[in-house]
Order: sequence, then C-alpha cells, then structure tokens
Amino acid sequence: MSDSAGLAAGQGQTSLGTVKIVGAGLLGTSLALALGQEQGRTLLADRSASNLRLAIEYGAGEAFSPGDQVDTVVVCVPPDFVAEVVSEQLVMHPAAVVTDVASVKGSVLAELSQLVDDQALERYLGSHPMAGRERGGPGAARADLFFARPWVIATHPLASSGAAGRVSELARLVGAQLIHMPAADHDAAVALVSHLPQLVASLLAGRLADASADFLALAGQGLRDTTRIAASDADLWLQILSRNASALSPLVSALREDLELIERRLGEIGQSGALADLHRALTSGNRGVGRIPGKHGGKYVNYTELTVMIDDRPGELARLLSFVGEIGVNLEDMSLEHSPGAQIGLVELQVLPEVAAKLTAALTEAGWRLA
Amino acid sequence: MSDSAGLAAGQGQTSLGTVKIVGAGLLGTSLALALGQEQGRTLLADRSASNLRLAIEYGAGEAFSPGDQVDTVVVCVPPDFVAEVVSEQLVMHPAAVVTDVASVKGSVLAELSQLVDDQALERYLGSHPMAGRERGGPGAARADLFFARPWVIATHPLASSGAAGRVSELARLVGAQLIHMPAADHDAAVALVSHLPQLVASLLAGRLADASADFLALAGQGLRDTTRIAASDADLWLQILSRNASALSPLVSALREDLELIERRLGEIGQSGALADLHRALTSGNRGVGRIPGKHGGKYVNYTELTVMIDDRPGELARLLSFVGEIGVNLEDMSLEHSPGAQIGLVELQVLPEVAAKLTAALTEAGWRLA
Repeated sequence: MSDSAGLAAGQGQTSLGTVKIVGAGLLGTSLALALGQEQGRTLLADRSASNLRLAIEYGAGEAFSPGDQVDTVVVCVPPDFVAEVVSEQLVMHPAAVVTDVASVKGSVLAELSQLVDDQALERYLGSHPMAGRERGGPGAARADLFFARPWVIATHPLASSGAAGRVSELARLVGAQLIHMPAADHDAAVALVSHLPQLVASLLAGRLADASADFLALAGQGLRDTTRIAASDADLWLQILSRNASALSPLVSALREDLELIERRLGEIGQSGALADLHRALTSGNRGVGRIPGKHGGKYVNYTELTVMIDDRPGELARLLSFVGEIGVNLEDMSLEHSPGAQIGLVELQVLPEVAAKLTAALTEAGWRLA
Repeated sequence: MSDSAGLAAGQGQTSLGTVKIVGAGLLGTSLALALGQEQGRTLLADRSASNLRLAIEYGAGEAFSPGDQVDTVVVCVPPDFVAEVVSEQLVMHPAAVVTDVASVKGSVLAELSQLVDDQALERYLGSHPMAGRERGGPGAARADLFFARPWVIATHPLASSGAAGRVSELARLVGAQLIHMPAADHDAAVALVSHLPQLVASLLAGRLADASADFLALAGQGLRDTTRIAASDADLWLQILSRNASALSPLVSALREDLELIERRLGEIGQSGALADLHRALTSGNRGVGRIPGKHGGKYVNYTELTVMIDDRPGELARLLSFVGEIGVNLEDMSLEHSPGAQIGLVELQVLPEVAAKLTAALTEAGWRLA
C-alpha cells in the first residue's frame, strides 16, 4: 500500500470527517443511522427523492448539496452501478476516500480500474459488511445492522494506507468486526457462505411455488428457516449471483453432484451402501453446521440459556424482566415462544455463563417456573 | 371407518382416559407435559431408564407399571421401531386406542398390517404432529411444542371412528391444528415441506464441513437459517428419509434439474437467456416462500410489528414491557435484537393490528423511541 498525501482529514486521526452516503436504501440508511450516533456530519444522496426524504425523516442525516465538502464517501448502490458511481465520486470529491458496500468485490474493482487511473484508485477501497435483511429500502434500516457483524475490507495493491485507515475507522465506528482479505478471496468466501445458500433457498422455495396448498399447510419452522432468504430482492440477487458466477459455479457443481448421489441412493434403499451414503450426507451436515461461528457472526460467545414459563397475560413478561433487572443481571438476548391463545409463554433468557447460576437460583427462589 | 365397541373410555366423550406414552424423548415428553395441564393420568414408558427418570422429574407424568389400565397409547419412538411397538401395545392393551407420532406414515402402516390383524388395526390411527426441535431428548421437551402446529391424522380405511375421535381429542387437547389426510398424501406432503428441506440443509451445511475457517468467519444470518436443521439427529433422519424415499425421490430429481440449469447458466453469463433463467429461479423462490402459511403453522395471523429502541442496561426492557402491560396491550410475540456491548437494543413487539395505533401513540407520548 502507498500513502496518499491528499487524505488527511481535518478532524484528526480517528475521524471520518464529513461522510457522504450515496444510495439511501437499507444499507446506506442503516449506515447513516449508525454513524449518526458516533460522529458529526452525514450527508445523503439518492436518485430516488422519496428514498432520500424517508431516510432524512428517519434521522439518518442531511441531504448532500453540490459543493459540500466531503472526506469519506460510501457508495451503497446495487452492484451493477457501483463502479460507475464510485468513479463519479472519486472525480467529484478529489480528496475523499471512497468505499462501497457491494456483495461482490472482484468485478467491481476490475470495472473501476477501466474507469479511473491508478492515482484515483489509491483513494478507493471496497467494503462488504455481512449484514442485510430480506426487506430492503430505507424503511427497513436499523442503526445496529452492522453491530458485531463481519465487515470485509477487500484489499488491493494500489489502495493507500490512508484509505485503509479511513475505511477501517468506518467499520469500527458502527461496531463491525474488521476482516481484511483480497477481493478474490472475498468473492470465493461469499460464494460459499452467502451466494450458494441464497441460490439453494430460492430453488427450494421455488419447489413450493406450484405445490398443493394442502401440502403447504403442513409447513413447520424448518421450512420457514431454510427458505426465509428466498424472499430477498430478485433483481439485486441477479446482479450478485451473475457477477460472482465464476466463484459460485464450482460450488454449485459440487452440490449438484452431492444431490445426484442422494438421488441415486434414494432409488437403491436396501442395496449395499445406500444408507451409508445417506448417513454420510447427514453427518457431514452436522459437522458443517457446527463449524459456523456464533450467532453474532464474530467470535463465538457461548451464552447460557434459561427458559422460564410465564402465564399469558399482559405484564407477566415485564414482571419477569423487572425481576431479572432488579437482581442486576443483564440479558444478552432473549426470545419469547408464545402462540396466540396459549396458556403459557416460554421466555428464553440468554445470559453470560458466569451469571446463569445466580439467575437460576434467584428465579427459583422467587417462585418462577423454569422449564 | 367402522365403529369399535371396545373403545368407550370410562371418563366420558371428551376424555382420553389414562394415556400411556411410550418413548420419553423430545416428542413423548413434550406431549406428556402438554397433556399434564389438561387432563388426568399420564403414564410414561421408555427403554432408557435415564430418559424416563428425567421426564418424570420434569413433571411429565408417572412411570407405567405392568397391569396399569390404559385407554390411549401414544407411541413416540423412532420410525424404525414404530410398527413393532404399536403392535406390542395393541396386544398389551386390548381395549386401548393406539397412535404414534412418526414422521412417515405409509411404511409404518404397511409394516403394521403384516404384524396385526384387521380387528386390531381398527384401534390404530397414525399421527404426525409437525413439531420438533433440532435438539432431542426429554431435556429439550416443551409443553407448548404442539401449540398451533399442524397435527396430521393419517387416515386409513380400517380405523374406527372411535379411534379417530380419540386421536383428534389428543391433538385438540395440546392445542394443535388437526389435518386429516391419507397416509400416502401425508408422506408426499412431508417429502416436500420437511424431508426435502432437511436434505438440502444437510447438503448445504456439508459443503462447509471442510471449508476454510477464514471463509466461515463471513457467515451471516442467512447461512445460519438455511443450515440450522442440518444439526438434527442423523440417525433419526436416516430412518425418515430412507422410509420416504419413493415420495422424496421425484422432488430430489426436480431440484437436481433446477440446480443443473443454474449450473449451466452460471457458465453462460452474457449469453442470451442466462440471466433470464437465473432471474426466474429467484422470482420463483419469491413466489414459493410467499405461499408458506404464517409463522405458527396454521391460519395466518398478520401481526403488526413495532420496533422500540432501548438503552442497553439491566431493567430497560422490563420498564418497556411494564409500560406495555400497564396500558393493557398483550404482546403476541416479541424479539430482542441486541448484541453484547451495543449501546441500544431493538425490541420488536408483535401485536394485533387493532391495538398497534394505540400502542404507538402511547409509546411515543411516553417518550419511547420507535425505530
């Protein structure tokens, strides 16, 4: 990496200076909301006047005006437009560091290299925060979208250390966990952990499109979980999958081969080796899922879960949580298993292991029913 | 269906009489816990003394003793043992109705028909509650496991109306939603909504088994959701998948063909029609996931979601929920989006649409921050 003289922001080493976010969709608006609590001025731009207005009403920032001085630009537009918009921003703000948040990095960098010279590329460094929702738009934005999520900085040889510092600072400010990797490695990684799951979920859900409603009435949580992301924006995902086709292809081929073996073996139940291959697929899945890091996407935190049964009436959950708060225990996470009309609700409390025993004892002594 | 004279239980029309549950695993223990709140005597049997003891300690019921009078038997053992255990129970309790909860119904009925005569079959009717967890054993049991979940009664021509009434009553008592369908239809339905998703999740997760840990560090919620059920018991699922191979096979073939098309098209990006086929797969997934009934598995209830931002300190959530309780609003569901160390937590409150406006107004007036 080379250092670029033009990068020193006015506001000191840990400041992003004035941030401009181009594209006030889910990611852009969430980023602006997250930054809003941490630093000074955030300017927003969007071709869609209604997106921009909604993001501003949400408190994400102010509208960018031509002539505004900008230190850091974050391009949050769909992959097909990223290279073009990044190149525009590099020209429009000749001293700014520019990053983007697209899910593919190699093709964007290659395109951008055709659009701008090497000197401009020093001020560009691509990002990919591993965060999203199956809903899009500024209305789905959340200030904590990036918190504790991996944030990949896609390194490239021309990027200046000043640009790297600025983008790292951005990720750090919104609470993300920094991961540096070259664009090609990033693309191979997301093909496995994001693009293949999306494709598989879409194909699996696609099998339901024309299925009997009587059959779908039997759907349980497993089907819901395995197909949830199939509700994602098809236009956006078309761009992502097609732009990462070369990294995705070998994974699709491998999965197709796995599926072919199972297809054949299902026709050979009773023959030698058929059950062994089925079993191997299932245990291999056990091993694979066991290798996924903890729920917040970063370092695995092994919370202890306590389940408390409460009566289903207004205020019961509050009474429980008041009790937990009064004894000074902080909840790391919680969920309520409750169905309309049920007599009881099950409250799952996730706490740090070191306070679990204390909480269990206190709840039991106070007469709470632990499941 | 024929009526069987031997079926009248002593405790009247809506009673199951004394229930015996054979197999105190996740389903058996959950069923016993659920029944415990609704009716009289529940007896438990399990070849595993530790399973049985744990279930009894959980308050699921009493241990069955030889000679105990039993009116309804629920067999909750793995699929491979169901027919044998059902036939034993039909002999051991010659006046009882016997059901089971196995995930496959056709093969069990066929096996059982070889083991018992038609008269005994009058007292048997298979069930399949669409409920489970990726963890097994009595320790994972939950009293509300079946609440609002589909419960399939796998009809067959020999079953008596008395048996049908008894099994329906069982499902009704634990709050499940009854669905009647012939065993073959059931098996075709679960192949689609349960067995194919399980297989796909296992194969997808299997692709992670030997992947680079650096790649897995980028895992987000999508990967977690699509692979969650891959953690399920491989031995149990081997029995389920192999026993439903004939219904599952054509679905696996169709999915393999879908995957083959995508595999080919990913190698042809830029050629005519490649993007169209990719897009079609994604939009078909959109349509498919949109056809899955609501989260509780039954009639879709369209809750309104409000998101409240709270400070991350003990007692804040309780203060919010106390407030909600005080104004008389009952929460249908809630979840906490919160990461360790975050400054704020996002509380998603699900309420009936008719109370959402009142709640929004009250929260805003009281100074709560709505996201």
